[in-house]
Parts: sequence; structure tokens; C-alpha cells
Amino acid sequence: MTHDKAPKSPNPIWGGRFSTTPAEIMERINTSIGFDKRLYRQDIRASQIHCSMLISQGIISPEDGTAILQGLEQILQEITEGRFVFKTEFEDIHMNVEARLADLIGSAAGYLHTARSRNDQVATDLRLWIRDAIDSIHQAATHLQRTLLDQAERHADTVMPGFTHLQAAQPITFGHHLMAYVEMIERDLSRLADTRLRLNESPLGAAALAGTSFPIDRHYTARELGFHQPCLNSIDAVSDRDFAIEFLSDAALCAVHLSRLAEELVLWASTPFQFIYLSDSFTSGSSIMPQKRNPDAAELIRAKSGRVIGALQSLLVLMKGLPLAYVKDLQEDKVQVFEAADALTVCLTAMAGMITDMSVNTEVMRAACNGNLTATDLADWLVMKARIPFRQSHAKVGNIVKLADERCCTLKDLTIADMQKIEPAITNDVYRVLDIDNSVRSRTSFGGTAPANVLIAVGEARRRLLAKDGERGRAERRDETET
Amino acid sequence: MTHDKAPKSPNPIWGGRFSTTPAEIMERINTSIGFDKRLYRQDIRASQIHCSMLISQGIISPEDGTAILQGLEQILQEITEGRFVFKTEFEDIHMNVEARLADLIGSAAGYLHTARSRNDQVATDLRLWIRDAIDSIHQAATHLQRTLLDQAERHADTVMPGFTHLQAAQPITFGHHLMAYVEMIERDLSRLADTRLRLNESPLGAAALAGTSFPIDRHYTARELGFHQPCLNSIDAVSDRDFAIEFLSDAALCAVHLSRLAEELVLWASTPFQFIYLSDSFTSGSSIMPQKRNPDAAELIRAKSGRVIGALQSLLVLMKGLPLAYVKDLQEDKVQVFEAADALTVCLTAMAGMITDMSVNTEVMRAACNGNLTATDLADWLVMKARIPFRQSHAKVGNIVKLADERCCTLKDLTIADMQKIEPAITNDVYRVLDIDNSVRSRTSFGGTAPANVLIAVGEARRRLLAKDGERGRAERRDETET
Amino acid sequence: MTHDKAPKSPNPIWGGRFSTTPAEIMERINTSIGFDKRLYRQDIRASQIHCSMLISQGIISPEDGTAILQGLEQILQEITEGRFVFKTEFEDIHMNVEARLADLIGSAAGYLHTARSRNDQVATDLRLWIRDAIDSIHQAATHLQRTLLDQAERHADTVMPGFTHLQAAQPITFGHHLMAYVEMIERDLSRLADTRLRLNESPLGAAALAGTSFPIDRHYTARELGFHQPCLNSIDAVSDRDFAIEFLSDAALCAVHLSRLAEELVLWASTPFQFIYLSDSFTSGSSIMPQKRNPDAAELIRAKSGRVIGALQSLLVLMKGLPLAYVKDLQEDKVQVFEAADALTVCLTAMAGMITDMSVNTEVMRAACNGNLTATDLADWLVMKARIPFRQSHAKVGNIVKLADERCCTLKDLTIADMQKIEPAITNDVYRVLDIDNSVRSRTSFGGTAPANVLIAVGEARRRLLAKDGERGRAERRDETET
Amino acid sequence: MTHDKAPKSPNPIWGGRFSTTPAEIMERINTSIGFDKRLYRQDIRASQIHCSMLISQGIISPEDGTAILQGLEQILQEITEGRFVFKTEFEDIHMNVEARLADLIGSAAGYLHTARSRNDQVATDLRLWIRDAIDSIHQAATHLQRTLLDQAERHADTVMPGFTHLQAAQPITFGHHLMAYVEMIERDLSRLADTRLRLNESPLGAAALAGTSFPIDRHYTARELGFHQPCLNSIDAVSDRDFAIEFLSDAALCAVHLSRLAEELVLWASTPFQFIYLSDSFTSGSSIMPQKRNPDAAELIRAKSGRVIGALQSLLVLMKGLPLAYVKDLQEDKVQVFEAADALTVCLTAMAGMITDMSVNTEVMRAACNGNLTATDLADWLVMKARIPFRQSHAKVGNIVKLADERCCTLKDLTIADMQKIEPAITNDVYRVLDIDNSVRSRTSFGGTAPANVLIAVGEARRRLLAKDGERGRAERRDETET
Repeated sequence: MTHDKAPKSPNPIWGGRFSTTPAEIMERINTSIGFDKRLYRQDIRASQIHCSMLISQGIISPEDGTAILQGLEQILQEITEGRFVFKTEFEDIHMNVEARLADLIGSAAGYLHTARSRNDQVATDLRLWIRDAIDSIHQAATHLQRTLLDQAERHADTVMPGFTHLQAAQPITFGHHLMAYVEMIERDLSRLADTRLRLNESPLGAAALAGTSFPIDRHYTARELGFHQPCLNSIDAVSDRDFAIEFLSDAALCAVHLSRLAEELVLWASTPFQFIYLSDSFTSGSSIMPQKRNPDAAELIRAKSGRVIGALQSLLVLMKGLPLAYVKDLQEDKVQVFEAADALTVCLTAMAGMITDMSVNTEVMRAACNGNLTATDLADWLVMKARIPFRQSHAKVGNIVKLADERCCTLKDLTIADMQKIEPAITNDVYRVLDIDNSVRSRTSFGGTAPANVLIAVGEARRRLLAKDGERGRAERRDETET
Repeated sequence: MTHDKAPKSPNPIWGGRFSTTPAEIMERINTSIGFDKRLYRQDIRASQIHCSMLISQGIISPEDGTAILQGLEQILQEITEGRFVFKTEFEDIHMNVEARLADLIGSAAGYLHTARSRNDQVATDLRLWIRDAIDSIHQAATHLQRTLLDQAERHADTVMPGFTHLQAAQPITFGHHLMAYVEMIERDLSRLADTRLRLNESPLGAAALAGTSFPIDRHYTARELGFHQPCLNSIDAVSDRDFAIEFLSDAALCAVHLSRLAEELVLWASTPFQFIYLSDSFTSGSSIMPQKRNPDAAELIRAKSGRVIGALQSLLVLMKGLPLAYVKDLQEDKVQVFEAADALTVCLTAMAGMITDMSVNTEVMRAACNGNLTATDLADWLVMKARIPFRQSHAKVGNIVKLADERCCTLKDLTIADMQKIEPAITNDVYRVLDIDNSVRSRTSFGGTAPANVLIAVGEARRRLLAKDGERGRAERRDETET
Repeated sequence: MTHDKAPKSPNPIWGGRFSTTPAEIMERINTSIGFDKRLYRQDIRASQIHCSMLISQGIISPEDGTAILQGLEQILQEITEGRFVFKTEFEDIHMNVEARLADLIGSAAGYLHTARSRNDQVATDLRLWIRDAIDSIHQAATHLQRTLLDQAERHADTVMPGFTHLQAAQPITFGHHLMAYVEMIERDLSRLADTRLRLNESPLGAAALAGTSFPIDRHYTARELGFHQPCLNSIDAVSDRDFAIEFLSDAALCAVHLSRLAEELVLWASTPFQFIYLSDSFTSGSSIMPQKRNPDAAELIRAKSGRVIGALQSLLVLMKGLPLAYVKDLQEDKVQVFEAADALTVCLTAMAGMITDMSVNTEVMRAACNGNLTATDLADWLVMKARIPFRQSHAKVGNIVKLADERCCTLKDLTIADMQKIEPAITNDVYRVLDIDNSVRSRTSFGGTAPANVLIAVGEARRRLLAKDGERGRAERRDETET
Repeated sequence: MTHDKAPKSPNPIWGGRFSTTPAEIMERINTSIGFDKRLYRQDIRASQIHCSMLISQGIISPEDGTAILQGLEQILQEITEGRFVFKTEFEDIHMNVEARLADLIGSAAGYLHTARSRNDQVATDLRLWIRDAIDSIHQAATHLQRTLLDQAERHADTVMPGFTHLQAAQPITFGHHLMAYVEMIERDLSRLADTRLRLNESPLGAAALAGTSFPIDRHYTARELGFHQPCLNSIDAVSDRDFAIEFLSDAALCAVHLSRLAEELVLWASTPFQFIYLSDSFTSGSSIMPQKRNPDAAELIRAKSGRVIGALQSLLVLMKGLPLAYVKDLQEDKVQVFEAADALTVCLTAMAGMITDMSVNTEVMRAACNGNLTATDLADWLVMKARIPFRQSHAKVGNIVKLADERCCTLKDLTIADMQKIEPAITNDVYRVLDIDNSVRSRTSFGGTAPANVLIAVGEARRRLLAKDGERGRAERRDETET
């Protein structure tokens, strides 16, 4: 190979104008210990299990293995207690741990990295971390569901205008509205559970990319780390980040749900609506305008959806067009995952706090239903009572509403005679139909807004939550047994 | 209400400088028939089931109902045969169908819209459409898996350099490399299956947002349309687009996988690599440079990942911060879904074609393994044979490689004596370890690159595919019975 | 080269399960005429100028050149009049035009492609198209500014609550609020103008990637096509899509501005606000609820921001990591550009229509200022009058507001005696300060909300618009002279 | 107002299952001092200028004003020297500074916030910060240009294959290829300069949103802070984040350019290409495979484009649909801006280091030009020499290449007689045309790859850089005078 310039000669350009040396630049761009130290617990756990396997397969001696296991336990303690000194010269969490291990137990530390590489190691660590993050988000999300259920039950028969296009459309119950969010979060939980299941395969033992000739037992390490099975293909195991992207997709959609609820809280708490009253804890006041309660937490939740969506996009862009197998680009996955998980967790928790503390101006909500929100009820009643096709019935009610408008009154202020001029089939029963409470009570179709439906839905959601707790309890007990 | 200006007065500004009238502008921004006509099959099917339910619940008469059913069937035929005239004045597919129904059967058509609204109607249509799209993508993706399996089997023992950082690292088998993509697509299929399951709930009967007081049977319509159950909350049913976003998330990740394989095809087919040879069908030549085979299809697949990712982003942005329930913003979901589904389908199909047609330059691949790609094998062998800690073993092999470099030869050109100076434990067996074919054959750890492993993995993947076909067969037969 | 399989042999797998042949798939993924025909005007214009240059440089004969020029003119007419038959077999707009040219003038058509390639040709066409799109968006955006200016002038002294956190904060004038959007669009125009200037370099003559040995005159073609200069580097010229991304960035930000105004229109028109009244033209009513005016156009504008942002993201993803020079991926740029330009144009136009037609409920707006919105005025007055530090003044006013709250009245209902108990420096002048109209009139700091300021700002904005029209007029006259 | 629940009562739910109190959650989601302390220099500077203006306008007394100015100077020192204690209880940088000021100078500190609010304050700070960031990125980017120019000059006549579709297409010079990136970065600089100009307006004095009744001088504060003018509209001033989005757009496009160069470095340094040799400083080796030089820095640069693009998307999502004026969502802008600026700066600097240190395997590059890369030259020569239309000429050369392929040789190995059978006009001069060096030398069209062109382009780019330095020098001197 002919080079036009000796590659290792000291570079005279550096150091003149720019004070940073190549080494400093490289350290700044390359070193990951600043963020990947968050993986320490997962990294040490995986190393311990890997070591146990090496012992039981006879790849390393019990003496060396025991020294490694004890050294790792000590390192875990040092980090947990804040006594560990992370060094950028060791670049990442893996080398920081291994270097410290060599300090503690000497050359036997050199056995730990047998039959693995940093490529499978970091993939294992990150899967374990995301698995833990999902469990923690699960807790925060079910807690939010509980707060929504409590408010939904309390407001099962609180009437409010249901909006379409932010125009008051039909009376609904506030409890029913809140239950829509319980459903959204239920799907979020379901997605996270699917993601957890799918990511729960162990990359450990894929080594650099090709597997290894050591007689390792990947099923053992997988099982002990709580994975369902080892990844089936070693190249895929080290170059895949599906689990991170899928987690971010779930998180982005959940964040969008929260942004919608946050938007509604901002609206409901706004001066023109005044439907709700957010607590001091989650608003900022003004020393000069005590009546002003800025819904800061809600706005920040709405905003943070942008960050989570950005994290998802970052990682999709990062992976686009990358050849197999491991490439250094993959190192950049972690910050996005960490930041998105943090943002989502704080949003879920803050939202639960706001919902719990929120008080509802039931009279304002009811007053906002005034007007002709029961016009649809009238039309439906005509179809049922007079067997008029729906389209025609709608047209007739349109005329009745127009009449009310002309008289500057609402439907229920019209006389029977007035209405019968437009549709003779109308009887005195009509006033029952035009009543707001009757309206919501009549919407008993499956999933409809009737108060009775809301209470049933709350009950069923509570049962789902209990069942889920049971499952998790069992799973945790199983995990404890296994691990 | 006091207005400063009569709102309905003709606007003198329009028509002066700008020739477009408000009506024309509104038609351009508002009318959706240009794209939502793709929902016609789903829309008519849902209307038919809805109508059957209205009859059986006694909400409309059998005579009117039968007229509606027959009219809808005729409209379906007209559209299928290209005889239907879509009109922008009717805005969308729903009103186009209903208007035509009124043409055909008169005022009885007015009964069809009883106990539903366009809000639950369009949500139902789009779920059905995406369900169909998933089924179609499932077919295209499993077809691609089959073509990968065929090539993986054929090249189970074809050696090539495994790259990390695009630097040749260790010998692997080409079959094993291709199997990594089979795994990725397997996860894509798994995600799509989860999405299909989760979206498979029926919004029909949620009506505008509150449910209805008509005695409808949402379980009947859900079952007949192949849904598992009705959506549990009417407000959620009309304002949720999770299913679309989740579908686009799945599609984006699958598109990223394809972009990675496309990148590799471009690389492998490039002049410096020459690992593979893409067929005429999927490349463009040049009249002047016949040796040039531009991998157009691969590049377009790589590029189209951008479009699918963009569609996902569009829909996340669209939903962010929207209050419940139905808002017109939701109308913009369809184009993104359609375009992403189209792009993904054509990419999967083109990729399958390229993989099938691709021929492999096995000798070039093998020649590219020359050098010191088996250095890791040597280090591992020293660990196993001489019980040297891995880190130390690596250091010694580093010295041996440096020696070979100085002599401008590769490891296997060194003499035993040379190597023993660095590590006395080395014996003549070393040459067996340095052999490329032995190297890949030795990687028999679970999921490793050994040819035998590849054949087993191919066999198991084939069994998975057969099982999946069986399931789908059963599901389809069940669907036929049910619907 | 050794292939394991003959690459051109007919593929027995195709046609079995899948009915699409490789050729059909390739046509579907590869052919661009379906969308790039929108470039026809730019393509023909660039070809004409290129041909004129070839003639004047003596590269082709005047006879052949004239035949080409006449042929191209005829093709332009055929397309404009809808008589041209676009054929997918010719893949794209360039080959469709050239093939038709050969039909019309025979083998002389073969001279046209001298000293150029499709790589520089398409880059030229797309730059010209975006330049035209920018001019058209400029018109639509300044038209929107004009409608905003008209309403701002009309409502220079219409008071409304200024919101922070959607909480009523201080009285402002509606005209001032609208002028904020005039500013945003002014920046959008400024960005588009910068983009236009930067993209206005000619790729023509870069040929495939290396330039050419023909004695072409790139300055001539650049000038005649209205470009400032030829691109300086031939490789950059064919592989750069900065101009498209920059255009989409501008468009995305402008779309976000429109989404904010759209959000406000939706809010203002909502049942609880009732600040404005949108015209029938841009809302959809309901046959049954005449009072309901769904702000469809505003919601669609809000939603379409997602599409434009998605287009930007698509193109950034597409370009990420692409090696130079031309790659087929670049073909996918056009659809994003076209769709974003279309979306933005219709949004600007629809917004202008809505603003023009919008009527304002000035009484409702004024009534919404009731309460303590002038508390800040009081605090400021205390600072000025009594020289109390602002923080302390604020605290005192806080106590006064609290007193009013306790008495269920507003500030101006308190007596002087009441207020003096908290701050003795308060005099009877205070009631002037607490008046809403006085409040807005006092905000005369540069850029403040005072009605007089608004009228000045409107006047200056009108002058800017006139100046801009003048510039454009001159530019257009210059273009006409030149081209 | 009727509340169903006392809003301020202590919440019994908290503290049971979840240990975080509302206050802790709110602190976690709301407090920004953790990141916005990076604005300290800008914040203090703006406060100083604001205070000077208050003094000179007679709004506060010279005594109080001087105390404030001195206190601020001391705080600046404390922070710079790392002695300042940031407190989360004061939420953000503004309140931390003001609280410390009160510590230092007592109640006079309360005058500082006269006639401003945090809304205009933070907008001012962030504009100043981004202005500084742009200046710093300008330096890093022009430094990268210089390193590219040095290499381009050195390799003005180094031939390499120009690729299209990653297929070797025509010979080019490496210097010309590098100059394409100089052009891209030139446009990046141009965009950043436009952004800097456009953002350089002062929000200070817009106060909360409406301006103020204090007789402030916004032109003074604008001028002293180096702004061109005050923002024209107070509402726009506090609610606009265009400058941040535009900065992120510029950064994203620049990051995409770097990702393309990074991709090429990875390719060129890859085992099959071996075109270049990256220095130890920017690669990671392997103790066991000394020949392996993993291009870590290049891969990380490629990856970080994802982060910058994600930041842009985050902020677009954040702003979408926000009503005016200030909303708390805007607080989330800063992290994105900081992270993107950091990422871009480190990428530019690392890239400059790699380019400087890179050595080029000129022989490998030349050898890769073997084959028929000069076929286009032959076709062009036939057009010029024999006046054959280009399309026909291309077809003939196609046949000649095919003949060479059949004989397993390249074009220049064919005899004249062989070629003349296909095209009789060919003479012995043809061998000159087929020569690689002659090919690149002949591409002298403006912007073409000829070595002479490259040297001219390098010279002109150097002059542009010098001129720019001159401008900056003058600007900096002017800034010093002014501020």
C-alpha cells in the first residue's frame, strides 16, 4: 500500500489555531461512559451470569470464576454507594468495570471476556435496561389509569358537552370522557407488553458477530437473565436495535396520548372554559394575579411529546441504511432511549398527580350543555317513534332548531304546537327527550356514554388492573425463583 | 351575539386578484373523495353489515333493509367495474355511496345512516383497510423470507468476511448473514400480527361520539366484520388513530430493515466489492458501459424508507395535542397510510425479486477473507489449549499478527518456530485453526455462523412459515364461515 | 468472475405464486413519469436553452438545432393542451420528451443530449420548479398578509384578553395579535427569498458528474434560465438536494405558523370562546344543529402541518449517509416537494379566505377582559408613581387582588380606602389605570399593543408589501427581457 | 365557582404507593435550572443592558442601578469561577440570578425586573446564545473547509473513479470530489449567516406579551446587545421560536452533509476499497488485529446526524398548534438547541481532524480506474470528431465495449482495426482519449473535474475564506466598540 503521507506523523496543523488535540476531540466524540454508566447494574448482572456459565461449562476454573464473581459484586456495591470512580480513559461502562476488576483481583479478570465481546455485551445490557424501563413505565401508567378510574367513577353522571371540532355537539358524561384515556393507556400497556416479550431474547454469546467455538451454554445465560431464549442469529443479535426503536414507538404514541389529555386540561382550565380547577401543586401562580393558575405541568407534558417523538425519529434515522454487523453508530442509541424513558415516566407521573388533584366545576360543565345539544336525540326519537328515515328526520329537526333560533330560545322552550307544525308526530314526550340527563342516560348502546355504562366500564377496568397485578406478581415471583 | 360584519355577505375581495372562489378553495382543501375512494370496498361491506343489524334489531323494516342491501351490492359492482362516477360535491366515499344509493332506491336510502355517523363509519373503514393491508404485507414479507431462505440454504457454507465497522473482521457464512434478515422480518411480521390483533375492534355504533339510544347490536356488527369485539368506549372509538400510527411504526421499522439490506446489496454489487451480481431486471444498464449495472431497485428501496418514516412522523405530528372527540384533522390520516402501505409493499416485492435473481461471486467472497481474519480463532484456541486468560491471549496474538505484518505475509505463512517464540504453547495444530473453513465450522455455539447451524436455522424457519400458512388457512376458512 | 448461477436465465420462481413479473415490479418501483411529468415545462425550457447554447458554441449545427427547438416547442404545446401521451416505458419526463422529439424530427433528436446527462438535467428541472413554487407561495403568503392587515386595521382598538398559558393575562388589541402573524409570515417570506437566491445556480453542464470536454458555455445557459451563475462544482451539482431540503424546511416552519393560527381560529370559534364567527364557506354545518359551525378548513390547515413536516423528514432521511455522486435514491425527492408545495399553497389560500371572511364578536372579546387583567397596570403604576421596587409593588397588588377576590368583586369595584389600607400611595387616579381601554392605550413602548402602534405597524407592513411588489415587478420585467 | 372537591386539601393518595410527592414531581418536570444555566452569560449581559437603559430613561435611580450593575458583575464572576450555587427552588437561571442579586444588594434588586418579564428575558437570552453558537460553528466549519482545501490542493490531479450508484462511472480527481464538500459547507455557512441576521432582533421590552407603559428605550437595549433592531411585535417577540427552529434546520442539513462525507470515509477506508487510511487518532484498533482500523469517529458523525434531525423534529412538533402568546411548552426548546449545537460542533471538529490526518492510497485509487471508465470520453470524441449524434455515438461505443468484454480486455487493448469495424471514423488518436489522465484533464468545462479547475476552485475558495475572515474581523471590532 502506498500512502502519500505517513499516517502517524504528528500533525503540525493541530495545536496552532485550535487548542484541542485529536485525542481530545476523539475523547469527546467517542467516549460513552458519561451516559452508558446508567447500564451498570445490567452490565454487572450479565457479567456475573456469563461468568457462572463459563465455570459450569468448565471454560474457566472455579477459583478464577469465584474471584470474578466476588469482584463484580464488590464493584456493584461501589457504584451503588457512589464510591466508584468512572474514568473516561476506559471509554465505556464495560471497560470501566473490567479495569476495576483487574485492580481488585489481578490477571484472573482477563478470563471474564472469554467467549463474548462488547458487541453482544452492550446489546444484552440495553435489552435488560429497556426491560426494566418498561416495567417501571407499566407501574406509572397503571397508576395513571387508577387516578382516571377514580375520577371517572366520581363523575360517572356529571354531564358536560361532548365536543366535535371543539364545537359543543351532544351531552356526554365526564366519566365517559375520562374512560377514553383509560382505553388509550390500556393499548399503550398492551404495546409495551408485546415489546417486552419480543425483546426478551438474549444476545449474550453472539460474541463479535459470528458466535464462538467455546462450548458455551447460551440457554443457561438467557434463562438466568430472565430471557425467554437466546437470539437465534448471532449477526442479528449484535446489529439489531429493533427493541429500542419499538420501545420508542410505544413511548411516542403514549406521549401523544398524554399530549392530548394535557391539551384538554389546558383547555378545560382556561379562562373561557373553567370546566376544571388544577391544584396549586401542578400550576404556577402569579404574585400579582392570584386568579391565574398557569397549567405548567400540563403544558410541559404536551411539549415533551416532541422530545419523545424526536428520539424515535433520531433512532430511525440512525439505523437507516446501516450495513451489518456492529457499527459504531449503534453507540448513539442509548441517549435517545434514556431521555425518552425519563421524559415519559415524568409525564405519566405528573399527569397522574394532576388528575388526582383536579377538581371539577360540575355546574359550569352542565351550563355549557345549554342550547340545542339534544337535537340529535330528537331526530333519533322521530326515527324510532314515527319511522321517518333518518335523513328526513334530521332535516325536520333542522327546521325546528331554526325556529328556536329565530325565537332566540332553545328547543325545549318551543311549544308542542310549534313543533307539530313542522312534524305532526311530535307529542308531549318530546320534552323528556330534550332533557340533558335523559339524553346521556339513553345512550346505553355498548360503549355509550350512559352513566350506568361508565360504572360498568370502571368496574371492568379495575378487574383488568387487578388481574394484571396478579400476573406481574406471579411473574416477579417466577423471576425471583429463576434468577 | 354581535358581529362587526355580516358573516354571510358575499365577499368583495374574492375574485379580484385571486380567481379562486372560497368554494373552490374549500373544495380543494376539504374534499377527500380523491383519496378515500380507496376505502370503497370496506365502506360498502360495513354498510351492509350495519344494515343487516338494523333489520334484525327491528330498527328498520325488512323491505327497506333489503332494498338498501341490494343497492349497496350494485354500487360495489359499479365501482369494481369502473362504472361508478365519483363526485367531489359529495366530498367523501361515504356520501358518494349514500347519494348513489338514494338514486337507486329512493328515500329508503335515508334509513341506512340510522344509529351511526360518519365518525364511526370512517374509523371502521380505515381499520378494515389496514387489516387488509397487513394481510397483504404479510404475504409479501413471507415471500421475501422464502427467497432469503432459498439463498441462505444455497450459501450455507459460502464463506465471506464478516464486517464490523465495514472492516473485515472474521469469516462468516453468507447463508448466516442472510438469515439475520430473516430474523428481522420475522420480528416485523410479529409486530404486524400484534397490531392486527389490537386494531381488530369495531368502532361501528359509537355514532358521533356518545353512542346511541337505538337498540343496536354492536357485537353482531363486530363479529360479522371479523372484529374480535366492539371498541369499549364510544369517544375513544371515533377519536383514536392508534391503529394507523402503530401500523406506520411497524412499516417504518420494516422499511429500515429493507434499507439496510438494500445498502448491503449496493455495497456488494459495487465495483470495489463485486461480491454479488444483480440481475438485469432490477438494475439499469448504460448503452455505453455494459459492465455498469446500476442497482436502481436497491437504491429506491433504501430511499423509500424515508417516505415511510415521514408518513409516521406526519401522523404523530397530526395527532399531537388534539382534543377529543372527532376533529377534521383526522381526515388527513389516510393519505399517509395509503402511501406508506404502497411503498412498503413495492419494496418488499422488489427486494424479493432481487434476492431471488441475485447471483453470488463465491470466489471473490472467499478471496476477501484472506488476511488475518482468523486471528480471533487463534486467540480463542490459546485460551482453550493453554488456559491463558483471554486478555493476555489476545495480546500475544497481536504480537504474532504484527510479526506477520512485518514479513508482509499472513498468519498461516509463519512457521511454528516463529510463533513459538511469542507463545511456546503453540503446536502444529495451529494451521488447522487458521483455516477459514475450519473457522466457520467451529462456530457451533447456538446461533453461530457454522454451516450446520445455518441449515438447521433454515429448516426451522421453513417450519415456522408452514405453521403460519396453516394458521392463516384456518383463519381464512373461519373468516369465510363467519362473514 | 465466477457466478454460482447464470444471472440472466429466466427465473422459474416468478409467475408461480406471484403474478407480477420482475419487469412489472421494476416498472412499479422505478418509473417516475407518474409524478415527474409535473416538471415538463421546466424540462423543455432547459432543453431549449441547452440547445441554443450548443448551436451558438458550434457543437451542433444550426439546422439540427433549429429542428430540435421547433420540436420541443411543439411538445410543450402538446402537453399544455393535454394531447401528449406519457408512456411508462420511457420511465421519466426527460425520456418521454426526447422520445417524442425523435418521433417528430428523426435522428437529429440524438444531438440534444450532447454534453449533458439526466443527472444534471433533473437537478436543473427541479431547481426551476421549486423556484416557480416559491414565487407562487410568495404570492399566496403576501395575500394572506394583506387579509391579516385589513383585519388588524379594522380591529386596531378591539380589546381582547391576551393569553399566556391560555389564561387571560392582560388586555391586548386584536389587531396587535393578528400583526404577530404578519411578522411570522414576513420571516417565512424572508427565508423563502434566501432559499430562492441560494438555489438559483445552474447545474446544467455538470453532465454525469465530471463536467465535459465539449466547449460548452455554462454561463450562457445559467443566465438564460434566470440563474445567477453555474454551480461551481460538477459533482456537487448532480448530487446536491440542499435546495429541496431548505425549501421543505421553510415550508415546514410556515406550516407550523399556520397551524398555530388555525389552532387559535378553532379556539376562538369554539362554543366556550365565541370570539369569532367563521363564514359558511370555510365551515361545515350540520343539517340538525344550525348553530354548529365546524371549522373544517382551520382543522385541515392545522393537520396539514404534519404532512409538510413529514415531507421534510422524509428528505432528510433519504439524504442521510448517501455517498456521492448521483444515486437513484434522489429520484424520490420530487413527490415530497410536490406534495409539500401543494399542501402549503392550499393552506395559505384557505387561511386567507377564512381571515377575510371571519367576523369578530367584539363584545364577547371585551367581556372576556373583565376580571383583574389590569393588575399589572396597577403594579407598574405603583412603581412609577411611588417608586416602589417592582417585586414589592407586585406583592402589594397581589394583596389587593386577594381582597377583591374575597369580596367577589374586581379591582375597580374596590374603594380607594380599601386599597390605601394596603398601599397608602394609591390615589383616585387608580381607576383610570384599571380601565381596559386605558391599559391598551398605555402600552406604547416600541412594538407594544397600543392601538396607535397597531396602525403604524399596519402602515409599515403595507409599505413593505408595496416595495416588495415593486421589486418583483422589476425582477419579472428583467426576467422577461432576459429569457 | 362550585368545586366538587377542595382543591388545596392535602391529597391522601400521594405517599401511599408512590413515594414522590406532588412537589417532587413538579420540581422534576418543571425546573429548568439543570439545563438553562448554560444561558448565564447571556442572561446577565442582557440584565446589565436592561438596567443601564432603566437608569438612562430615569425609570430607576442611578444609585439603585449602579448597585444592580455591580451585583450582576459579581454574580457573573461567581458563576464563571464555579463558585455560584444553583438552586432548584429558584427554578431557572433568571430567578437564580435575581435571588442572588437580592442576597448581595438587598431590596434594590427588586427594581431590575421593571418593564420586563421572564417571557421576553428568556427569548432574549436564547437568541444571544444561538448567535454565539452560530459564530462558534462558523469557526469550526471554516476550519473544516480549510482542511478540505489543503487535501483538495494536494490531490488536485489524483485520479479516482467517480461513482454513480456506487458503480465506477468516469475518472475524476480526488481534489474535485473533496471540493464538492467545500461547496456544501459553503451553503451551510450561508444559511447560518442568514439565520443569524434574521434572529438578530431584540425581544427585550416586549414584557409579558403586550409591551409596557414604562418609557423604555428598546432601540438602546437592542443596539447594546448587538441586535439590529427590536422585534416589531411584542406578542410575536415572546411566543416566536423561529430562530431556534431555523438554526436546527441549518444544523440538520449540515449534519446530513457530514453524514455523507462520513459514509464516504467509511467506504474508502473499508477493506474492499482501501482508498484511504485514517489516522490512529480517529480510529480504534484491535489488540489482536492490528490491520483493523475501525473508523469510529466517522461512524459517530454519521450517527449524530440522527440526533440533530431528531432535535429539529422535536421542536417542530413542540410548536405545532400552540396558541399565542407565551406557553410553558416553550421551555422545552433549550435542551434540543444545546444538544444539537454540541453534536454539530463536535462532528465538524472531528471531521476536520480526520480529513487533516487522512492519507490517500493514490495507487489504489488509480488502479480502480481500470476498465472502461473512459467509454464516455470515446463517445464524446466521436460526436466531436465525426459529428455523429450523441445517442448513436453512444450505441456504437456500447458495441466497442462489448467487443472488449468478449475479449476480456479493456478498450485501450483493442486494435484500431477492431474499433474501425464498428466505427470507421476512429483513428489512432483514440488512445489518447482513452487515457485516464487525459480524460480528467479534458473536463475543463466550468466546474468540471480537470486538475486545473480544481486548483482554481481551491484558490477562489481560499479568497472567499479570507474575505470572510476580514468581514468577521471588522464585525468583531464593531461589536467591541458597540458593546
